[in-house]
Amino acid sequence: MNTCNIETVVESVINELKAKVFVMVEASGRHVHLSKQDLYALFGDGYQLTPVKDLSQPGQYACAERVTITGPKGSLQNVVILGPTRPESQVEISLTDGLVLGVKAPVRLSGDIDNTPGITITNPKNGKSIIINKGLIVAKRHIHISPEDAERFGVSNGQTIKIKVFGERPVIFEDLDVRVNKNFKTAVHIDYDEANACGYTKNSMGLILS
Amino acid sequence: MNTCNIETVVESVINELKAKVFVMVEASGRHVHLSKQDLYALFGDGYQLTPVKDLSQPGQYACAERVTITGPKGSLQNVVILGPTRPESQVEISLTDGLVLGVKAPVRLSGDIDNTPGITITNPKNGKSIIINKGLIVAKRHIHISPEDAERFGVSNGQTIKIKVFGERPVIFEDLDVRVNKNFKTAVHIDYDEANACGYTKNSMGLILS
Repeated sequence: MNTCNIETVVESVINELKAKVFVMVEASGRHVHLSKQDLYALFGDGYQLTPVKDLSQPGQYACAERVTITGPKGSLQNVVILGPTRPESQVEISLTDGLVLGVKAPVRLSGDIDNTPGITITNPKNGKSIIINKGLIVAKRHIHISPEDAERFGVSNGQTIKIKVFGERPVIFEDLDVRVNKNFKTAVHIDYDEANACGYTKNSMGLILS
Repeated sequence: MNTCNIETVVESVINELKAKVFVMVEASGRHVHLSKQDLYALFGDGYQLTPVKDLSQPGQYACAERVTITGPKGSLQNVVILGPTRPESQVEISLTDGLVLGVKAPVRLSGDIDNTPGITITNPKNGKSIIINKGLIVAKRHIHISPEDAERFGVSNGQTIKIKVFGERPVIFEDLDVRVNKNFKTAVHIDYDEANACGYTKNSMGLILS
C-alpha cells in the first residue's frame, strides 16, 4: 500500500499537467505542389503563381490557381495549388479521394514519393494536362514543431508521438511523426478523413500524450 | 522503490494481457433503413425487400434495392437499403457524405433520431421520391456485444469504452458506446471516415482498452 496525503496528490496532479501539452490542430484538404517545370507545362513558360492566403507554416501559401486531378475511375476538380514551387511535384489526397480517383495512394510523409503512383493534372482554363509518373500520396499525420517547442515538449525530430484531438468524436492518433525545423510554427496536420473521424472543427486542440 | 522479481513481472504481464481483448471491427458504409410505409411509397404497396447478403448482426441483411439520397447541395446514388423494415426510416451517412449533400447531420446512435434533419429518398427505377422529416444521422461509433462477451470483457450496456484499431494508421477511438443484447454478435462498428482515418482493412482488429 502507498501512503497518501494531500501534498503528494497535488504534486502528482501538477506533474501530470506539466507533462501534457496542448497544440493547434489543422486539417489539410487535398492539394497540389508543382515543380517549376510542371507549372510551366500547365500554365505557360515563366508563369508565376498567385498567392491568396498564407498558411500556418512560414513561406507557404495557397494560390488562386486550381487544377483537376484525374485517375482511372474519376476526377477531383478545383484542387488548390500550394506555393512556392518545389523540386518535385506532389499531389496529396485522402483515402476517400483515392476511391473517387480509383488509385490506391500510399500513406507517406510529404517529400517521400519514391515508388508512389502517378496521376494526371489538368489546367481547366486552357485544357493543358501533364502526367506525373510519381507523387500521389495520402499525407501521413505529423506535427510541425519549432526547436523551442520541441525542447519544451521533450520531443525530437523523427520520433513518433500520440496525440489526442478533442472534438465531438474524441480520438487518439498514434504514430504521429515529429518534424522539427527552425522555420516551423507548431501545428498538428491531419487530413480530412482524420478530421471527420474526430469531429474536428477549427477550434479543436490537440494534447500531446507521449 | 518497488522490489521486483521475475514472478511479479510475469504475473503483471499476464494480468495486462487478460485485461486486453481483441474484437472484430466492421466499417459501415452509407445506408438506409425504411419503415414499411416509406418502403411502399417508394417501391409500391406490399413490396417485399430482396435480401442479398446477411450482415454480422443476426437477422439484419443488405438488400438488392438501391436508392438515391438528395440534399440541397448534391446527391448520393446507389445507396444500399438494409432490412428488415423498421418502425421509422433512418439514413446513415458519413460527415464527408454530409458535405456532398449539403446537410450537417448529427452524430447519433442508431434509433436516436429526434431533432435530426430530414432528407429526400428516391427510387431511381421508377422516379418516386419521399421526403422524410427526420432520420439523417452520422452513426456514432459503437460496439455490439453479446451478454456472454460483455461479462467476459467486464463491460455493460450504455457505458463507453476506448478501442485501439490496428491498421496502417493506428488510432484509439474514445467514446465508443457499448450495446449489449442477446441477439448481438460482438463487433465494433465505425463509419468510413473513421475507417479511412485508421487505415482500416477487412482484417483490422480492435483492442478494448477500457
